[in-house]
Amino acid sequence: MATEDESSASISNNNQQQLNNNLIISPIISKNNSQQQLIKEVVVLQKNNLLQTFRDLFKNNEILDQPIDAYILPRTDAHNNEYISERDQRVKFISGFSGSSAWVIVTKESALLWTDGRYYIQAKSELFDEWTLMKLDGPDCIMPSDWIIQNLENGSKIGFDPKLFNFEKAKYFIKKLKNFGIICIPIIKNFVDILWIDRPKELIQKLFLLPIEECGEEINSKLIKVREEMKKQKCDFLLINCLDDIAWLFNLRGSDIPYTPIFYSYAIIMEINKIWLSKSINYEIGSLFDKKYYLAESPISKMRTIKNLIELNGMRNSNIRDSSALIKFLYWINNEISLGHLVDENRAARQINYYREQLDKFISISFETISAVDENAALPHYHVNENNNKIIKNESIYLFDSGGQYFDGTTDVTRTICFSKYPSKHFCETFTLVLRSHIDCACARFPSETSPVLLDGIARLPLWSNGYNFSHGVGHGVGHFLNVHEIPPYIGYRERNFGLKKGNVVTIEPGYYEENNFGIRIENCYEIVEAKNLKSGYKNFLEFEVLTFVPIQKNLIVRELLEQKHIDWLNNYHNKCFSIVGRYLQEKGMQV
Amino acid sequence: MATEDESSASISNNNQQQLNNNLIISPIISKNNSQQQLIKEVVVLQKNNLLQTFRDLFKNNEILDQPIDAYILPRTDAHNNEYISERDQRVKFISGFSGSSAWVIVTKESALLWTDGRYYIQAKSELFDEWTLMKLDGPDCIMPSDWIIQNLENGSKIGFDPKLFNFEKAKYFIKKLKNFGIICIPIIKNFVDILWIDRPKELIQKLFLLPIEECGEEINSKLIKVREEMKKQKCDFLLINCLDDIAWLFNLRGSDIPYTPIFYSYAIIMEINKIWLSKSINYEIGSLFDKKYYLAESPISKMRTIKNLIELNGMRNSNIRDSSALIKFLYWINNEISLGHLVDENRAARQINYYREQLDKFISISFETISAVDENAALPHYHVNENNNKIIKNESIYLFDSGGQYFDGTTDVTRTICFSKYPSKHFCETFTLVLRSHIDCACARFPSETSPVLLDGIARLPLWSNGYNFSHGVGHGVGHFLNVHEIPPYIGYRERNFGLKKGNVVTIEPGYYEENNFGIRIENCYEIVEAKNLKSGYKNFLEFEVLTFVPIQKNLIVRELLEQKHIDWLNNYHNKCFSIVGRYLQEKGMQV
Repeated sequence: MATEDESSASISNNNQQQLNNNLIISPIISKNNSQQQLIKEVVVLQKNNLLQTFRDLFKNNEILDQPIDAYILPRTDAHNNEYISERDQRVKFISGFSGSSAWVIVTKESALLWTDGRYYIQAKSELFDEWTLMKLDGPDCIMPSDWIIQNLENGSKIGFDPKLFNFEKAKYFIKKLKNFGIICIPIIKNFVDILWIDRPKELIQKLFLLPIEECGEEINSKLIKVREEMKKQKCDFLLINCLDDIAWLFNLRGSDIPYTPIFYSYAIIMEINKIWLSKSINYEIGSLFDKKYYLAESPISKMRTIKNLIELNGMRNSNIRDSSALIKFLYWINNEISLGHLVDENRAARQINYYREQLDKFISISFETISAVDENAALPHYHVNENNNKIIKNESIYLFDSGGQYFDGTTDVTRTICFSKYPSKHFCETFTLVLRSHIDCACARFPSETSPVLLDGIARLPLWSNGYNFSHGVGHGVGHFLNVHEIPPYIGYRERNFGLKKGNVVTIEPGYYEENNFGIRIENCYEIVEAKNLKSGYKNFLEFEVLTFVPIQKNLIVRELLEQKHIDWLNNYHNKCFSIVGRYLQEKGMQV
Repeated sequence: MATEDESSASISNNNQQQLNNNLIISPIISKNNSQQQLIKEVVVLQKNNLLQTFRDLFKNNEILDQPIDAYILPRTDAHNNEYISERDQRVKFISGFSGSSAWVIVTKESALLWTDGRYYIQAKSELFDEWTLMKLDGPDCIMPSDWIIQNLENGSKIGFDPKLFNFEKAKYFIKKLKNFGIICIPIIKNFVDILWIDRPKELIQKLFLLPIEECGEEINSKLIKVREEMKKQKCDFLLINCLDDIAWLFNLRGSDIPYTPIFYSYAIIMEINKIWLSKSINYEIGSLFDKKYYLAESPISKMRTIKNLIELNGMRNSNIRDSSALIKFLYWINNEISLGHLVDENRAARQINYYREQLDKFISISFETISAVDENAALPHYHVNENNNKIIKNESIYLFDSGGQYFDGTTDVTRTICFSKYPSKHFCETFTLVLRSHIDCACARFPSETSPVLLDGIARLPLWSNGYNFSHGVGHGVGHFLNVHEIPPYIGYRERNFGLKKGNVVTIEPGYYEENNFGIRIENCYEIVEAKNLKSGYKNFLEFEVLTFVPIQKNLIVRELLEQKHIDWLNNYHNKCFSIVGRYLQEKGMQV
């Protein structure tokens, strides 16, 4: 078959052609599918106004930073393929012309299509009304770039889709026009694609490997030769977009384009000297690399956990808003229980979620809300469902652990409350010890880079001293609008080769769980800051600055189990809850 | 919320859990959708036999090179995520257990699930029949690797999914087992995925960029810091699979996992010194690179066009088979026309395609078959459709240009035939000149790396000498089961900075077209080989070796317009057609 660029065959789908022609004249009648019919009618309507709609995009500021005066479109695809798929037949969609060689220019006044001598007759019959046929060869020929220079004013802007232009040729084209005061604007979103409602979908077709019996050379052998050529040119990267190059190199064939066993792809061949594999890499990927790797924690994990000032500010603000939701919840549940209304774990969880959903910058909850009564709360991994849903009674001990994802941060809070006027002494004592654990940890000052294992011990001591313990970590990192369990920060009994640093955000959440009876956990988020007012005057000491502002139930505290410093911490904390969340609510025009 | 690895919450979808539990007991009744109902019943049936079906895979040689004795599966995903999506809940699918910490081992006799103390009670209630609960902690604890060593025989093979194992830990695990004579076999296709009919689909969720007001640091600034760390470790590549690392680094957020704004991805940070951009690269990609690029024809294009011996052998064999189809077609059309049966362009094209479809290793036709009568053939880019379909009459001049994609090669052939006993003198003269053009080119010998432009002149001379010409190239490259128009080889009048080399495959296809009257083209595929029997004795001369074996209609030839060498070429060619295709048909048990 003769090569297309000199003569010959536009391999086009005649049915599609037929369809497009019909669309201009009258709606297609389809008895089978009224919705499809409707779409087609819209397309017909649109086609009648196609050029106007197209020109409206010239000043559409959702796509453009600045309005343009014209748009240029070649008949090709992103891989410079000779045969293109139906979804790349943009010239045919906008102009009606189905030939294989074409340039389109649409200005505010004109719509022009260039093609070569093989297609003049065909173009005349196919082009939609309003379109002017231009010649790429012969005596009347004026090339598109020359036409632009002669017809567009100095200072005009012409848009183009950068993926449809050859890099080398486009650089020359842009430079040439620039010399005549015409600016080319690359626009990622193709104008035709925006208007093309029934554009064929991208099909993902299967690839298959050509066996050695058919291709005669292994991929590795081909790659060795390619790398030799790269070496000659001192290149450590080779970027390929030619689809038969890729199919040949990898002994692969596909069927993305009719009659041609290639597939849409790009390939990069790289010269790797030493690759850093992050420690969490899986075996499948890790074993692709010979011995040239360095296996270690990725440098990003550490950077990510040290929040910058804007991230910290977001964490502070999102925690304040989040706390306001939980304060509303505390008010609501106290009220409901005191009024004798039925509140079960499920309803309480929904109410917590509801208050969060009302907040600014809310995205989602940060994990499934834990809402647990009495013995259910003794399971730290408890989740309410239809079978275990318990009613929260006046005498219940109720634990809720919940958090939010906000555009500016992530939160995580647990409180344990009891509605009874006479809570059991045992519960109150253990509640107080958990609180003391929390406060002892929250008051700690420690050198920068301290292993959190040491803080785990400090937090547990009040419980240990009384023979109690709990089976989870004291705290974990919290991401900035990211994972609620951010790794690597972790205050726990397992060494994780990590030191706490200024800018980390972590939880403190000691607990106590008594099987078949009750569970207690008190959890706040904290930012790690530089320690203030150190006696020694040394630098590089850190302390916790609280982010969560939700009151802790005071009437459950056994005073004798606390020292004055714990009382001071708690009073100071409650003052902050009142003033900080109060100010936020006032600003929002709400009652404190 | 307490960290999952120490205690706490399996964030699971209770409805899904409910569904899975139900499936074990009885089919779900769905009145809305009988097909879905059917699928669910199949799933129920399958679940009853799940372990047996799973064990059947141990000896499935479509997945495995060698049978295995056991399979080990951890509860995680390819990114070592704490929270995993429903589609990664493989442990839950196979065992029923929904907790967040688990290892599964299935042997020919046993099915065991390991979990830790937080989940013993839950596991007991969730595990399907036949499953044994194993403990990861406490006095009864025996770790999975130790269990394997104690229970599998020396020489046993245990399969695992390499993407679900941490690289570093897996290397240790594999080594440990190897010391006890147990071989770990990585199996890419996960066994659970094979059996999981209603496995949730991979959802492609949108990403969004976190603005600088929320994230506080531009991507580039983060990348500079990452590159500094890479430099310290002398790494030019960094491969990351940790999803919050990727989200943080690129200031992106997604929603692939509930409650956690991350998205499935891998990232590579590279240190590029100099990148080779293939010449065909588009402007969008090319302009991503600063000045560090080398813009040139990719080295692959040249390699690809020089076919190796196996590819050449495939091209030869596929052309012989392909020629047999066209010979059958010639026999058929002669017969039909002589019997006075109605044959139009459309029917003839379908018949050509039909004969090809019957051939071994047929994949598809290699372009839309050109089937053109008289004035239609005067358009080299003609395609038959409902409007222009002409009947092939006794006096018609008929041109057909077609080809096939085969597993072992690609073909492209054109013949022009005439059924009249008295074809016009003018037609016969131009037919003979086109044939002479073809033969002159096919007989040429030339130095290796000769620019094909010179051959274009040689081919045109017989037509030019009589004042005729044609407006397309003389020939083009043909890919090996790839593009029928393979670039860069091209015999034409445009210089393409390419020299012909041994191992290229090209067409020779001169033509002549007379508007509103007729068209002629004679096209064969040729392999470029070393020239034989050179008088000079020099090496590095090339010649054409024919691949296509379809007779050329002799009664259209005007003897006086040819020299003896053309007659000799033609007789030799027809002898080859007879002997080579004849032998092929005989081997296939068909009449010659």
